[in-house]
Amino acid sequence: MDFFETVQRRRSIRRFTNEAVPEEVMRKALHAATLAPNSSNTQTWNFFWVRSPEKKARLVEYCLSQSAARTAAELVVFVASPKMWRRSQPGLIQWVKDVKAAKDIIFYYEKLIPYSYRWGVFNSWGLIKKIGYFGVGLFRPITRGPAFKGEIQEVAIKSTALAAENFVLALAAQGFASCMMEGFDEWRVKRLLELGCSDRVVMVVGIGREQVPGTWGYQYRIPAEQVIHEI
Amino acid sequence: MDFFETVQRRRSIRRFTNEAVPEEVMRKALHAATLAPNSSNTQTWNFFWVRSPEKKARLVEYCLSQSAARTAAELVVFVASPKMWRRSQPGLIQWVKDVKAAKDIIFYYEKLIPYSYRWGVFNSWGLIKKIGYFGVGLFRPITRGPAFKGEIQEVAIKSTALAAENFVLALAAQGFASCMMEGFDEWRVKRLLELGCSDRVVMVVGIGREQVPGTWGYQYRIPAEQVIHEI
Repeated sequence: MDFFETVQRRRSIRRFTNEAVPEEVMRKALHAATLAPNSSNTQTWNFFWVRSPEKKARLVEYCLSQSAARTAAELVVFVASPKMWRRSQPGLIQWVKDVKAAKDIIFYYEKLIPYSYRWGVFNSWGLIKKIGYFGVGLFRPITRGPAFKGEIQEVAIKSTALAAENFVLALAAQGFASCMMEGFDEWRVKRLLELGCSDRVVMVVGIGREQVPGTWGYQYRIPAEQVIHEI
Repeated sequence: MDFFETVQRRRSIRRFTNEAVPEEVMRKALHAATLAPNSSNTQTWNFFWVRSPEKKARLVEYCLSQSAARTAAELVVFVASPKMWRRSQPGLIQWVKDVKAAKDIIFYYEKLIPYSYRWGVFNSWGLIKKIGYFGVGLFRPITRGPAFKGEIQEVAIKSTALAAENFVLALAAQGFASCMMEGFDEWRVKRLLELGCSDRVVMVVGIGREQVPGTWGYQYRIPAEQVIHEI
């Protein structure tokens, strides 16, 4: 499907039919998710396709049994995993060497990534970084983070959101509907997925074929001139 | 362009030619950004297309003069504005009434949104919410937020990231390249754009025609089975 048609077609659908979603549709959409841009290509994300009926039932409950979860044929949880730069680092170093990247890029992946993506015990290393950034920032432009745990989580959350957007668009492009949900019990979802302490649940996405009408009505957007500022 | 081709084509391009980007290409991409899904349709985002040469030069400097900013024909800043639910609320109430949504949806937009999206002086209201969520959460699943200012910012940041992903894909679909940047001086960018205290700069996107090679090489992704978990 054409890109702009896909964007127009994608709506948050809250009621699905009981039609199954073919496995290849799901795999194609999950693959599209992995191609999203992300912070320094560290890919600090995990996608949980909850297929076991028992776990799925619990996940629906943790999404407060809203219809977009309850009627969904499939459920996928998008998780930001800020510590997962460790998982990517060896492959990334190999990659930048493979493509013969500049020396400072290789240095970045070998040495700087561990400094940037760590926060230390009780944010101690984060505090040292923050003071450093602040000090340098008095004299010249500098990035202000990520320093603390919350900021490093935020970077991972942003990247994971980009992946989730690719995912829902890829479903729309294949004629399937979805709903991104933020209304869930994060503590219980984390326990269900056995996530680490610093992991964050970004979205739960319900997927299926739209049961018309699956939306409340037309797509409302506030006037563009209130949002888009040319300066 | 076909959706999946678009996703494959989109890469983070760090060097652009000095070809201009037609205004209609930019407007089409910005429009696609506004169609992204977002939290309760509150559209707590602002997109700044920095066109004045003087401001653009300063923005490049605040992006640490990286080539993706320095060589970009256009620069757009994606800003999360957590207080902007106030801007959307009247239109949203009209909308849910127009589409004859259920009473609880109208109640949600009239009464619950202000409770959910406020944090109060020194997070005081956030604390009350948090204690309430925690208490109820002992007995049954419940959303754990957003309660505090940081959590409400996080919700807006997620929505804004979704819009930014639509934006870069829409550029790719029209044959133009882009690079999402997180390496910028947020304090200085906020001052340049005259943003509010609670606003957050999510991304600066550089846009132009790719100067080949605009990437370091092939697109590296860690093995899918490390990221996609079927449970």
